[in-house]
Order: sequence, then C-alpha cells, then structure tokens
Amino acid sequence: MDIIKPRTLSGFMELLPEKQVYFENMMAKLRETYSLYGFFPLDTPQIEASEILLAKGGGETEKQIYRFTKGDTDLSLRFDLTVPLAKYVALNYGKLTFPFRRFQIGKVYRGERAQRGRFREFYQADIDIIGDGSLDIINEAEIPGIIYKTFKTLGLKRFVIRINNRKVLNGFFELVGAGEKAGDVMRTIDKLEKIGAEKVLNLLTEEIGLPEETAKAILDLITCQERGLSPLDALEAYRGKNETLDLGITELATVARYMAQFGVPQENYVIDLTIARGLDYYTGTVYETMLLDHPEIGSICSGGRYDNLAGYYTDKQLPGVGISIGLTRLFFVLEDQKYLNPALKPTPADVLILPMTEDLGPAISFATQLREAGIRTQLHCEKKKFKQKMSYADKLDIPFVVFLGEDEIRDGKVTVKDMVSGEQLTISPAMAAAGILEKVNLARAVPPISEPAAE
Amino acid sequence: MDIIKPRTLSGFMELLPEKQVYFENMMAKLRETYSLYGFFPLDTPQIEASEILLAKGGGETEKQIYRFTKGDTDLSLRFDLTVPLAKYVALNYGKLTFPFRRFQIGKVYRGERAQRGRFREFYQADIDIIGDGSLDIINEAEIPGIIYKTFKTLGLKRFVIRINNRKVLNGFFELVGAGEKAGDVMRTIDKLEKIGAEKVLNLLTEEIGLPEETAKAILDLITCQERGLSPLDALEAYRGKNETLDLGITELATVARYMAQFGVPQENYVIDLTIARGLDYYTGTVYETMLLDHPEIGSICSGGRYDNLAGYYTDKQLPGVGISIGLTRLFFVLEDQKYLNPALKPTPADVLILPMTEDLGPAISFATQLREAGIRTQLHCEKKKFKQKMSYADKLDIPFVVFLGEDEIRDGKVTVKDMVSGEQLTISPAMAAAGILEKVNLARAVPPISEPAAE
Repeated sequence: MDIIKPRTLSGFMELLPEKQVYFENMMAKLRETYSLYGFFPLDTPQIEASEILLAKGGGETEKQIYRFTKGDTDLSLRFDLTVPLAKYVALNYGKLTFPFRRFQIGKVYRGERAQRGRFREFYQADIDIIGDGSLDIINEAEIPGIIYKTFKTLGLKRFVIRINNRKVLNGFFELVGAGEKAGDVMRTIDKLEKIGAEKVLNLLTEEIGLPEETAKAILDLITCQERGLSPLDALEAYRGKNETLDLGITELATVARYMAQFGVPQENYVIDLTIARGLDYYTGTVYETMLLDHPEIGSICSGGRYDNLAGYYTDKQLPGVGISIGLTRLFFVLEDQKYLNPALKPTPADVLILPMTEDLGPAISFATQLREAGIRTQLHCEKKKFKQKMSYADKLDIPFVVFLGEDEIRDGKVTVKDMVSGEQLTISPAMAAAGILEKVNLARAVPPISEPAAE
Repeated sequence: MDIIKPRTLSGFMELLPEKQVYFENMMAKLRETYSLYGFFPLDTPQIEASEILLAKGGGETEKQIYRFTKGDTDLSLRFDLTVPLAKYVALNYGKLTFPFRRFQIGKVYRGERAQRGRFREFYQADIDIIGDGSLDIINEAEIPGIIYKTFKTLGLKRFVIRINNRKVLNGFFELVGAGEKAGDVMRTIDKLEKIGAEKVLNLLTEEIGLPEETAKAILDLITCQERGLSPLDALEAYRGKNETLDLGITELATVARYMAQFGVPQENYVIDLTIARGLDYYTGTVYETMLLDHPEIGSICSGGRYDNLAGYYTDKQLPGVGISIGLTRLFFVLEDQKYLNPALKPTPADVLILPMTEDLGPAISFATQLREAGIRTQLHCEKKKFKQKMSYADKLDIPFVVFLGEDEIRDGKVTVKDMVSGEQLTISPAMAAAGILEKVNLARAVPPISEPAAE
C-alpha cells in the first residue's frame, strides 16, 4: 500500500496528549466559572448560510472567511461566536427568557496569513448578557468580576482589566468639536500604546484634520494618569457640559464602584481612557485584559456593551454586554512563556494496576472499585516485562502503581507504590482507595497555569 | 436597515437553552466516565488536507464529504474521528506512549440527504486503545465495561450490548467453504434483523451463489439461540476444525468471562453471532448496543477490534479497539422518545437574588459568597416589577430566590424562598448557603436520562 505522509494543516493547533490535558483543564475551568454566574451553555453550528454570516458584509473579515458551496447552498464557517448568537437570539426570540445569559466555547475560522502564534482554527470562549429593550448597568460591572474570577481560577495573578466607556469618549469628542470624526479618532487613539503620543498627535492633526488644540485636549484627557490625575477626577472637570459625556462619567463611576463590590481587587483593574476598542459596535463600557508581564501580546480578553445585537435579523432592540477570550492563542502564549503549571501532572490516570498473576479477576475487581470511587484507573495487562510497565507509568506521570500478586490476592490486600515518594505499602483495597483518593483530590485542586516568579 | 430572515441550516442541530443543558450534561458525563478508564482527552482539527482525509478513497463516504479549496489548498471537513486519529498516531508515533488510550468528543460532517433525525453536523464520542505491534485481548473485554458504565451513568438501564467476533465468522465461513465470499456474506447476514432469515437465505444462495447447504449451515449457526442453544456451546461443536475459528471462539469466550468481571450484568450483554458490522476494518471482537425498547433506531454505540489503524500513513502495525457513540442522533432519539429526565431541572442557575434596596452592595456580596461556595447564582437588578422577576425565576426553573430588603440587611440576614415547596425562611447568609448547597448537590446527582416505565 502506498503511504501518504501524515500532516496537520498549518495554522491548526493539534496538541500532544500532555498539552491537551492542560487545554482541557482550562476549558473545564472556564465552563465551571461561567456557570457559577448563571449562564446557559450554548452550542451553534460551525457552518451557517453565507447570507446569514455575512449579513454585515464587506471588510477585512470577509476575505478571511472559509466559504464554499455544497450542492446549491452557499456556506461559510463561522468566524466568531457573536454573529451566530445574534442569529440565534433573533430566531428564538419568542422562546428565550430575558435577560438571556449564555456562554459558548467553540471553534471559529479565519484564513489569516499563517504565522507563529496565529491560528486559522481557534477556540473562542464567550459570555454575553442580552436584554430585551433594556439592560441595567450592573451587568457592565459584573463582567469584570467574571473576568477576574476566570483568570484567577486558571491560576493567573499578574493581570489587569482595563476599563473605559465609549460614551465618555464620544461625549468628550463632541464637546471639543471632534464629534463627527469620532470613529477615526477612536481608531487612532487605540494606537497610542503602540506608536506613542507624538505620533498620535500627528495623525489626529494631519490625517484626521483636527485643530492642534482639539487634538491636544483629547490627548491631555486620555493620558491624564501620566500627570498623576485619576481619570474619574479629570472627567469631573467636564461634567455638565455634554449630555453623552455626563452619562458616560456616571456609568464609568458606577461600574468602578460595583466592580469593587464584585470582588475585583484594586491591583487587577484600572480605568484607562486610552482604550477605545476599534469596533463601532460598542456603545458603553469597554474592556481589555493585559498580562502585566507580557503587554506585547495584547489583550487576552476583550469586550464591551452594545446597544443592538441583532439589527441585521430583527426589529427588536437587543442591548447586551459580552466578552471573548481567544483561548487557542492564549494557550499558545502561556505555553510559549512557560506558564503551564508543572505541579499539574498531565497524566491520563491516577493509578496503574499491574496484575502479577494469570487470573486477572482480582485486578479487574480492584480497578472497578477505584473507578467507582472516582479514581482514574488503567489496567496494564500487555505482555511486557515488569520494567517496561514501570516505565509506562513513569512516562505517563501516573502517580500510583498497584501490584497484585499471589501473596496480595491470598491476603486480600494490594501493594501501592507512590511513584513520587517511592514509598510502597501493602494494605487493604479500601484503605488504598481512600489514601489514593485523598492525594488525587489535592492534585486536582492545582490550577493549570502558574506565573514564573518575577525576575 | 434591511432585515435578513434568521435561519439555521437544515440538518444542523441547534438546541434551545434548556435542551442544551441536557446535552451538555450528557457530554460532561461522557468525559467523566471515559476519564475514569484512563483515557487521554484529544482534540484534532475539524479541517484536514483532503489528501489525508481521503487516503482510503472512494465509496459512499466521499460523496458526502464537505470538500472545498481555500487559496491553493484542497480541504475537507472530517467525517469521523477515526481517520484523524490514524493520522495523529502516525504523525506523533515517536512521541506517544503505547498502549495509547484516547477519547475524543467532537463534531463531524456528512452531507447526507436531510431527513428527520439525520444530521449533517453531529457529535461523535469515541474511545480507542491503540497498541504498538500488539494489544492484549483484555482490552476487548474492557470496552463493553466502559459502554455499560457510560450508559448507566447517563441514566439508561434497558439496553443490551451485543458482542461477536469476526474471527468466528471468518473461520466458520472458511470451514463451510464460503471463505472467499466472507465480505459479501458478512454484509448479507448483517441484514438479518431487517429482512428476516428467509430473505437472507435467498440472498446467500441466489445473489452470492452459495450452495443451499452452506447457506443453511451459516444461518443455523448464527441463529442458534432461537433453538435454545448458547452461541458458545454451539461453537464448541466446531472446535479443532479451523484455526481462525478456534482463535475466534477462544477470544469470544475470554471476552465474555472478563466482561462479567468488569461488572457488566448478564441482562446487559449478549453474545450474538448475527452481528457482523459492515466494515472490512474489523478483525476481532465487534460491538453493537441496542435500546431494548427501541430496536428500530439501530445501534447507539458500535465498534470493534482492528489490526491496523494507520496503514495509509505509516508502516507501523498499530492494532486497536474502539467504539463510537453518535451523540447528536442519540440525543435526538432520546428527546423524541421523551427520555430526558424531568427531575433534572434544565436551569442556568441555582439561586436568583432579588435586591430590594437602592444599594446593591449586600446583594453583590451575597452573590459572591454563594459563587465561592460553588452555587450558580444570578443577580436580577433590571428595572422590572417584582412579579416579573418572580416569573423570570419560574420560567428558568431556578429553584431558590433570595430577597434582600432593608430588614434583612439591617439584621444581617437573607430571605430564601424554595420555589418548589414554597417555603420561605429568613436566616443568616452562611446558613442559607449551606442549605442551598445541600439541595443543589442532590439535584446535581440526577442523571440526564430516565426511561419511561415499561408499558
């Protein structure tokens, strides 16, 4: 038979088993955390009719889309989880209860130019809260609480959630006479971190055509922290001069106040007037999340408040707030930066049972007993040498090996070897199960990520 | 703005939130169960190079494949999880430890003719154990143990795992002179249940051209149970006459013996010489799983032993054994037959907190406390009437509602209403959390499926 050289497409993440254990652990933690906040799990098809997915049309995204026909149908692979959500909510409007809270963790597709750390197939982990007609500001404060809890549960500590409000920016731009160019201004100040204040000033005046005074006023406000001013204090000076701005200031202050009550520690968030988020879509609070030790990788969790989720599919006004974690890229970065926690042993089993007799009955029974107790158990009955079987346990990082020989079977005991300490005990099956379970439960509490000590 | 009518493609399952809760619960139970047996989780891309996926080439499957080009690349969506596994094992052979045990739950794609209960995008939930060069028979006996445990954990009781061995069939066909037509004979007897013994006999003689005597001998053996003979007893009469048959009989007897030790009760399995499984691929034990009350839907979990997983991609001999559950179709059938357990409340939250004061601080704090205790909690702070908020809890089946008014806040208490019993208590937050957690843990132990009482 001719052999075809096996390969995986470039831009598609395919992990070795040990790495996959970390990835699955992270996904499980995301599901658990999101669930604690009362979100429904949701799953939508990976393929949609192109007319649905491309309702918004045009732009950079369209070029990247995996689009094809099957029979007569023009199909596309989803490129995010937001458009399918909009379709879902519009389609099922009458059957949903609002506010509708859902999370979804799934693969999306973008045919980007292949490069290190960029993926064409990647997981997004999204949550959204959708109101019917209205949605209270408290939801915008709960979201950073969820972001904080999520990353803390994964094992991260040194991250900061940046918060801004689009009404603050839009209102201030109006106030200084740059209201009509708000979109352009927003996209320009988004570049501040990358290109610096001077270049942003140049762009605002020369490309966008703002008077230098206006451009300076904008830069002055958004970089107020550099002069030791808190953004909320700086903003108070402008209160009463523009309705949108006033509303934005109130929202921002409210979100900040509640956020502390939601348990986000001071060191994990900052009000930052420089973040704008490119998308026109957002209308209120916006979020970005940065790793303090790796600002260069950009935001690992972003989102914001929007006023109209599903305008392409329905007349209903559906405001909402949501965030998205690009999980595949995040995992790539964490692994690349050696953040995977070595204390989490990426093993498929807690126990390996080695039967030493012809009759496998007692070994099978003990395996069943351990599994009933919730202990992940493998039987190793292959025709291999003892040394090879121990090396199998070693390679897979299985923490306990159980020997069942004639003596053990006669005495109704099992011999348990702790592969870490080397300790070996011959005890009753029940005692062995209890002892193993205790250590296994400790091991399960280990988070998948650990930050290297600061240098 | 023009509105595009939202729709989901036909043949693609998209569940309402309550139904999705059941589906997620089933997937979680599969992951847990498979993990107990020491399988690595695995995830492979949904898209592969067509040359890889279609290495085997031709046949019915190829027509159904979602195949397209992106740039210069000829791509296909995977149509099962076995071919990607073969590629993965061949590609990573040097980095894997054998026997390699993996499970994978993921979507696959087949452009079948759309009809009720048939899906073009559907989940498969697979496990496989792959050996390097050899694999002990014990693995073939452990698999039914896993099938049993899986369906029992989901809540099913009235199912039967049918077991046969391809060596028994092949050996017997050789013995009666039908060895050269084994494939055709196998595909014909696979139809026995559908078309009956008489028609099978006709096909065997007229279409396949077996002498009537031979065809009768085959039918006699495989239907021996109808004459009150156990298949293993019936087979013993032929021992010593054909090497393959002898090996098959020994394997089948061994699997049956160990299977009982793996805890599969007598009423949940049967040795059934009529099941052949169409695929040429299988070489030893084969499995099918039937719902006793719904034989018409066919097998809900099938698989078997194969000698060569990845012959298209590598010279290495990689025998294995595996099974697959077609989860989407299974879910469709269970829902259709009203098997979803009404005792499992498909709610996104255990508690809904209704703050009754302007200051949301105490409500937020209590929400945080409940979430820390692992209780799924929603805050309802929308500007709605009390009655509407209670109706929200009702519609979403949230079992507990907590009221936090001025009195409660002053006294450091919370008022908890049990929405099922109607009972209402004003108690300390800690007591409330403990009481709720206890009931929530009971509710979590409820399986997603319950069989209606037999009629």
